[in-house]
Amino acid sequence: MRCEQAELTVMVMVREKGGERVVVEARNKGSWDGLIFPGGHLEKGESFFSAAKREAEEETGLRISRLRFCSMVHWAHRQRAQRYLVALFTAEGEGELLPATHEGKNCWMTLAEFAAAQGKSPAMEEYLPCFLGETDELFAEYDEAGTDTLRPQSKVI
Amino acid sequence: MRCEQAELTVMVMVREKGGERVVVEARNKGSWDGLIFPGGHLEKGESFFSAAKREAEEETGLRISRLRFCSMVHWAHRQRAQRYLVALFTAEGEGELLPATHEGKNCWMTLAEFAAAQGKSPAMEEYLPCFLGETDELFAEYDEAGTDTLRPQSKVI
Repeated sequence: MRCEQAELTVMVMVREKGGERVVVEARNKGSWDGLIFPGGHLEKGESFFSAAKREAEEETGLRISRLRFCSMVHWAHRQRAQRYLVALFTAEGEGELLPATHEGKNCWMTLAEFAAAQGKSPAMEEYLPCFLGETDELFAEYDEAGTDTLRPQSKVI
Repeated sequence: MRCEQAELTVMVMVREKGGERVVVEARNKGSWDGLIFPGGHLEKGESFFSAAKREAEEETGLRISRLRFCSMVHWAHRQRAQRYLVALFTAEGEGELLPATHEGKNCWMTLAEFAAAQGKSPAMEEYLPCFLGETDELFAEYDEAGTDTLRPQSKVI
């Protein structure tokens, strides 16, 4: 066994069924605040897919279908055996969007509106092309002194 | 921080450039022995992509290109916060195949020969369709009492 400490999370870009807009949360929890897509940690017994479906349903109230894996975002500590993984998914949502949850307020935005919006959560600028299929893996190292820029691995290797 | 213990590994199906065969190792290390594709653990500072390229090069001696992510195999402990991840890749290999490494002997096989071969490493029957694009995630829970069957998540969810 060569174990590391890892945090395993998911994030889902939920498109409205038959439309062009996506669900955006104005997260207000104290970490990764700002405009962001639904997501969170894997629970015990969950795959990345099942966590993505649960988080998207809990945080939007929509019926979620057509879940597809897009890309893995991978942060690795420069010295310690410690990783932070975010599996990015797209999905389709149908129904009435919850106006707010414990995460913050929800709204629908077009991708152009989201791309142009101020106050996005850290790294959403880098994540956004991944949801659109640009790369299979974004990778960056970090330590207490700072965090490198995320680089698309499928273009680098 | 919601940390888990995780082992992060890669496995690569290396196709011969301009041909139909893939590299098969007859692994003889004491764990996951049998016929298997090149792979191993992520080292410090490595992404899944860079680990896949390094392992494929080290274990085949070939020049590796056209690395593509296929699927994530995900084993989760039923009670403990413990995961085992295998990121599956395909790649193209060019040059002279090393006849053997510290992992065991190498040979070229067609996929049909590999599929029909006796003595494959555990779970290779389930991994093989993933290398061919069948699903984005295979998932199973395990504990000391036993291991569930791997299930394709993108077909279940």
